Amino acid sequence: MNIEAEWMRGGTSKCWVFESGQFGDTETSPDALLPRLFGSPDHRQIDGVGGATSTTSKAMIVHRPADDDIDVEFTFAQVGIEEAAVDWGSNCGNCSAVVGLYAIEKGWVTPTSDITRIVTRNTNTGQIIIQRVSTPAGALPIVPQAEMPGVPFPGYRVGLGFQDPAGKTTGSLLPTGSAAETISAGGTRWTASLVDAGAPVVILRAEELGLDPERYDSWFAGVELQLETLEQIRRQAAVRMGLAATTSEAARAIPKVAIVAPPAQSDAGSDVSVMMLSMGKPHPALAITGSIALTLAARTPGTVLYDITEHNLRPTLRLRTPAGVIETWSEEKDGSLIIGVDRTARTIATTTIHLPETLDNTVDASLAGATR
Amino acid sequence: MNIEAEWMRGGTSKCWVFESGQFGDTETSPDALLPRLFGSPDHRQIDGVGGATSTTSKAMIVHRPADDDIDVEFTFAQVGIEEAAVDWGSNCGNCSAVVGLYAIEKGWVTPTSDITRIVTRNTNTGQIIIQRVSTPAGALPIVPQAEMPGVPFPGYRVGLGFQDPAGKTTGSLLPTGSAAETISAGGTRWTASLVDAGAPVVILRAEELGLDPERYDSWFAGVELQLETLEQIRRQAAVRMGLAATTSEAARAIPKVAIVAPPAQSDAGSDVSVMMLSMGKPHPALAITGSIALTLAARTPGTVLYDITEHNLRPTLRLRTPAGVIETWSEEKDGSLIIGVDRTARTIATTTIHLPETLDNTVDASLAGATR
Repeated sequence: MNIEAEWMRGGTSKCWVFESGQFGDTETSPDALLPRLFGSPDHRQIDGVGGATSTTSKAMIVHRPADDDIDVEFTFAQVGIEEAAVDWGSNCGNCSAVVGLYAIEKGWVTPTSDITRIVTRNTNTGQIIIQRVSTPAGALPIVPQAEMPGVPFPGYRVGLGFQDPAGKTTGSLLPTGSAAETISAGGTRWTASLVDAGAPVVILRAEELGLDPERYDSWFAGVELQLETLEQIRRQAAVRMGLAATTSEAARAIPKVAIVAPPAQSDAGSDVSVMMLSMGKPHPALAITGSIALTLAARTPGTVLYDITEHNLRPTLRLRTPAGVIETWSEEKDGSLIIGVDRTARTIATTTIHLPETLDNTVDASLAGATR
Repeated sequence: MNIEAEWMRGGTSKCWVFESGQFGDTETSPDALLPRLFGSPDHRQIDGVGGATSTTSKAMIVHRPADDDIDVEFTFAQVGIEEAAVDWGSNCGNCSAVVGLYAIEKGWVTPTSDITRIVTRNTNTGQIIIQRVSTPAGALPIVPQAEMPGVPFPGYRVGLGFQDPAGKTTGSLLPTGSAAETISAGGTRWTASLVDAGAPVVILRAEELGLDPERYDSWFAGVELQLETLEQIRRQAAVRMGLAATTSEAARAIPKVAIVAPPAQSDAGSDVSVMMLSMGKPHPALAITGSIALTLAARTPGTVLYDITEHNLRPTLRLRTPAGVIETWSEEKDGSLIIGVDRTARTIATTTIHLPETLDNTVDASLAGATR
């Protein structure tokens, strides 16, 4: 069996893009087919197209829905490496950035001006993402030239606009009804903003944790010393947001924790310093979903982030992270609020993947032993 | 620019196979083109086809020579990951296994019987490798079924026969003229066989190092305690083999050291227990070149390996390594000695790789700034 796929880079991920028509009944369902195409289960994925890391074992399944309002509908698949399984539980912001470019390259959407707008819908989350791809004079440049942090080669600029991202998990932007809560943990009272946009996030003030806004490079070490208290805060926040019934039942992955402070005086290139915690540890980067939550919090009076950014509220917000500055943008249009972030994307290769085995392991007995 | 390539698994490596006609002048020389296609320099190779590990950042360049005696000539390229550079210094045994299968799949060689014989020549080393691919009833089976250690999915069985591999580095199988030398190091005298076949290897007896043949699983720890003495032996061997003028000038990578013993009495599945040292450390596996050297040593009277295997010399030799048993075979034909090892290979995908940039970074100034 041969399967057609485009191998694309979206942001800092590599993604295999399949059209949904190639998947069908049980035997060719993506749950069965994707792990085998990727070479799973195998920690090296040596017999398949997977890259043996979480950011290179990803697939996108795309199709053109009948719905006129949506140009492309897409489903993200995190393909297991050591397990022959697919996780459909979330979207990937980086891989999302390939969808608009794919639609243009395949002729599904025809560029007509300097920016081509592609309305996409992610089926994992229900999130509508309005993508804007640079098409100067109505065409993709032959040589893409847009740069982004973490990628040493240029790609096509893709703006990802998350339409009305608030409350997708809990039903509202501020699930407790308040922009700032007081949480007691480790013998101290902490100010926390509990926000649901893109993903549920608990936002804390760096100063309360004794972290110096002027010395951002000291935060890693300072955060490491307070992980236990931070985890207590996070679990209480999970309960208040309605994500868990008790603190002991709170999930490891959500909500995430973000620690924020005004930028250092020497840092003219950002509006806020951020350190994210993911799975209990300080994280060098910022997931796209996290940047959406912080951007909406920065626009919401009363949050700990609004206090930092209100004097400087512009359509763009520049978030300092250990891995570099992430810039987000906001706009209101036709009654919707769109929060966006820019990525770059590029098609690495056009491929036909060969799948010799039948998936149910039925083999022609006459071939058995036909080896040297 | 578009470049056609087959993405193939050869043994436990992934290899990108290019036909040489796609490379030409300076701008399209493989030294310039391969690193960019692979996404180098970048420790993640996120914008290219490289897999960001040494076993997944490999290329083969193949062509059909005018020479009637050779079906396919191939050049191995180890593509740098953090450096935009290509190492042409050696061949890769695993990737070699894709060449015969490629020739059959492209119709360069037509199968006529149950085994198709493809004569290949590696240009990095000058080594002729006679490949035998299983083609029952004169065709590749639709479903490949051959298994090998380290690869969880089946492939096509490929036998790699190294023709007259002795002396490719030093000029002779036994560069000192003797099958066993005595080397003094660490206050003791050691028996060593210095052999050049596939690669230069120093072979030592496990018993002399106090390693118990009946307790193979204790060797790792026992070898770790004697690394300094082993390095002294290795450096003296390098001088005696003519690979270095003085012990201090001996290279890190060659010669390699192999420690051998009769198999444990409980081990009916091997003919010899082997532990290889690579770059100063015990290695869990055995490079194909190392297995060729040991096989030729086992056939050569007077070597420390001949003493172990002479009572049991068969056309095949089973080498116990921590990663599993490697089986080699030997045959004499038309005045040549062929030492072989079996691998499996498979084509993962047929691809067109997209290279948007011009390599000299000349860009159309009218496109500058054409980003969102």
